[in-house]
Amino acid sequence: MPDTETAPERIPHGPTTDRPVRFSTLARDAGSAARAGRLETPHGAVETPAFMPVGTQGTVKGLTPDQLWAGGSRMILANTYHLALRPGEETVAALGGLHRFTGWDGPILTDSGGFQVFSLAQRAKITDHGASFRSHLDGRLLELTPERAVAIQEALGADVAMCLDHCPALPAGKDAIARAVDRTIAWAGRCKAAHARADQALFGIVQGGAHEDLRARCAEALVALDFDGYAVGGVSVGESREEVRRALAVSTHRLPEDRPRYLMGVGRPQDLLDAVATGIDLFDCVMPTRNGRNATCFTDQGLVKLRNAAHTRDASPLEAGCDCLTCAKFSRGYLRHLFMAKEMLGPILASIHNLAYLHRLTSRMREAIRAGRFVQLRMEVLEALGP
Amino acid sequence: MPDTETAPERIPHGPTTDRPVRFSTLARDAGSAARAGRLETPHGAVETPAFMPVGTQGTVKGLTPDQLWAGGSRMILANTYHLALRPGEETVAALGGLHRFTGWDGPILTDSGGFQVFSLAQRAKITDHGASFRSHLDGRLLELTPERAVAIQEALGADVAMCLDHCPALPAGKDAIARAVDRTIAWAGRCKAAHARADQALFGIVQGGAHEDLRARCAEALVALDFDGYAVGGVSVGESREEVRRALAVSTHRLPEDRPRYLMGVGRPQDLLDAVATGIDLFDCVMPTRNGRNATCFTDQGLVKLRNAAHTRDASPLEAGCDCLTCAKFSRGYLRHLFMAKEMLGPILASIHNLAYLHRLTSRMREAIRAGRFVQLRMEVLEALGP
Ligand SMILES: [Zn+2]
Ligand SMILES: [Zn+2]
Repeated sequence: MPDTETAPERIPHGPTTDRPVRFSTLARDAGSAARAGRLETPHGAVETPAFMPVGTQGTVKGLTPDQLWAGGSRMILANTYHLALRPGEETVAALGGLHRFTGWDGPILTDSGGFQVFSLAQRAKITDHGASFRSHLDGRLLELTPERAVAIQEALGADVAMCLDHCPALPAGKDAIARAVDRTIAWAGRCKAAHARADQALFGIVQGGAHEDLRARCAEALVALDFDGYAVGGVSVGESREEVRRALAVSTHRLPEDRPRYLMGVGRPQDLLDAVATGIDLFDCVMPTRNGRNATCFTDQGLVKLRNAAHTRDASPLEAGCDCLTCAKFSRGYLRHLFMAKEMLGPILASIHNLAYLHRLTSRMREAIRAGRFVQLRMEVLEALGP
Repeated sequence: MPDTETAPERIPHGPTTDRPVRFSTLARDAGSAARAGRLETPHGAVETPAFMPVGTQGTVKGLTPDQLWAGGSRMILANTYHLALRPGEETVAALGGLHRFTGWDGPILTDSGGFQVFSLAQRAKITDHGASFRSHLDGRLLELTPERAVAIQEALGADVAMCLDHCPALPAGKDAIARAVDRTIAWAGRCKAAHARADQALFGIVQGGAHEDLRARCAEALVALDFDGYAVGGVSVGESREEVRRALAVSTHRLPEDRPRYLMGVGRPQDLLDAVATGIDLFDCVMPTRNGRNATCFTDQGLVKLRNAAHTRDASPLEAGCDCLTCAKFSRGYLRHLFMAKEMLGPILASIHNLAYLHRLTSRMREAIRAGRFVQLRMEVLEALGP
């Protein structure tokens, strides 16, 4: 296996200055492949490593764009599958595109819709041409091809669009994963050929399960197609943490240094630290908001469950030292009350904290990388959090 | 019947300067009994007429205190019945009282809990001593007496507490209403005797249905008890608009000029205009937030139902000229999408607008009173809104 630092240099790729999104590395960690960088997009710049909250249906559940911004969010994700079904990408386009539609005028990334077709839609059938499936909302028969995934995302108008990939359901044999990789590479080529919107970047997605050779083949084929950025997919669909690490190790270092690297669907604080150590820049996950709605909150001392009776008369904040709205203004006792009383404000405040926690964690990582102490930060945080 | 302007002057009452809340009239309308004033409380001043959003369980559903403030809310209401059942007034007190508990550090008013005992609790039995009932949450047998209503409210620590009153279920014969008035007067005396918290005001509540003589008797008896303010109760429990007007006409003008007057449970824009014309200063109602959760919004052109398919691709704001967050940032098309997709942000944004609408309406009333054109404003708004 080539060494992490030199391998990407050998891979030829086009210039980055005229791309819709541009990535620059600002600092490298001495003890790992971690890097602090800056992603410039048509809707502003994002310091990396960065975590993107998920706004599945064009809204991060319960939060206004200004609450997101105040909590440290700088780039959000929206789901193509959900928006294409409802209200439909043409309606979003008619209402001015995703930024105008959602009121979030910072950077946005849309996924391709493939993951939801495979996981959420009914009776999905996948061929080399694409996927046919029935809407989980009304049973309508629909088709998602690479060309259609690009067309929908161009209509939605995010800053970054994703290639349609094939992430096979686990457990899957190596043969099935190899076929999914072939298809992912072929679809990436078709997405690239179909993509025409000059103010929108297109990222390729590396698949290949936990198989080093398949990951390598996929990464190299995608890099040859010269995408604006690269994602590592298929690592949050049920594998062990060890498998995730291996998939990352064999994927990330084959990706060009001057392009952003995005690990899809990962949001556990521990996993963010692991992934940044391999050179990942971007993350997304529903976990902070989904956990928040379930009264479960991230802290540096581990998860806090707000329904616990121990919090009933606890006047202290959810996490001391956190400067989020939730911790600045409200006690654990009040937060518990909101959840016991089934008040909307409970999920809202817990989501605000969880997002702020992850944004602060990435901010601490950026600082540590610049200060040459990322490995130390990672050890400190992991020790307090547990595995 | 004595004339509106002079009657209250004849009623003796104590000085207002050493009271926990103080009301001063800043302007009087020439064509009606409307007045613009200022209510000073231990947690800040409120310009009146003012509308108080309802935070039943210590939260105005879905909104943070800063969102409330930004939308124009200056004083909120919390429900004693709900908070006494969960988390319990002692827990609220242990967490620093309602202001610290809820994070709202502006003025707060608590009701007495009586209305919920009569409308929400199970098997309520009312005697002259008080009410016994079973909690709607867990069936526990509980008792609410005037003394207990005051003790709970003192523990909650709002700026304004309300006397326990008896509001009979409608329809009720005059005899039943007369007995409820006697009880309301007796309970008001016991509340006044029990109330000891110097930084909290206590308001009496005028009952009497649509009966002029009963309203008059109740008002006069309460005024003789010299409360910090007076509420008109029992006018939002199913009567016709004409009955409401009559109840108001015979109640308001018997209340002292130098005390705040609060019409309980009223929030329709039309009713606010009617009531201010009779000299009411304060309102509360769940309507703006409940309507908001049901996708129904106030505008000067009448109610807008956001689920209507006509809004699907409507890029215009909910109400042109409204400066609330909802109208500043989001289209009707997006708001409709949020409701169709059952996203929390729909109820949140609709509630923000509905509250801002009522706050703007009271602000327009204050301005019109100062400018001597309240009657004109009322006519203009009512003409656009319909009856
Ligand atoms: Zn926090
Ligand atoms: Zn508005």
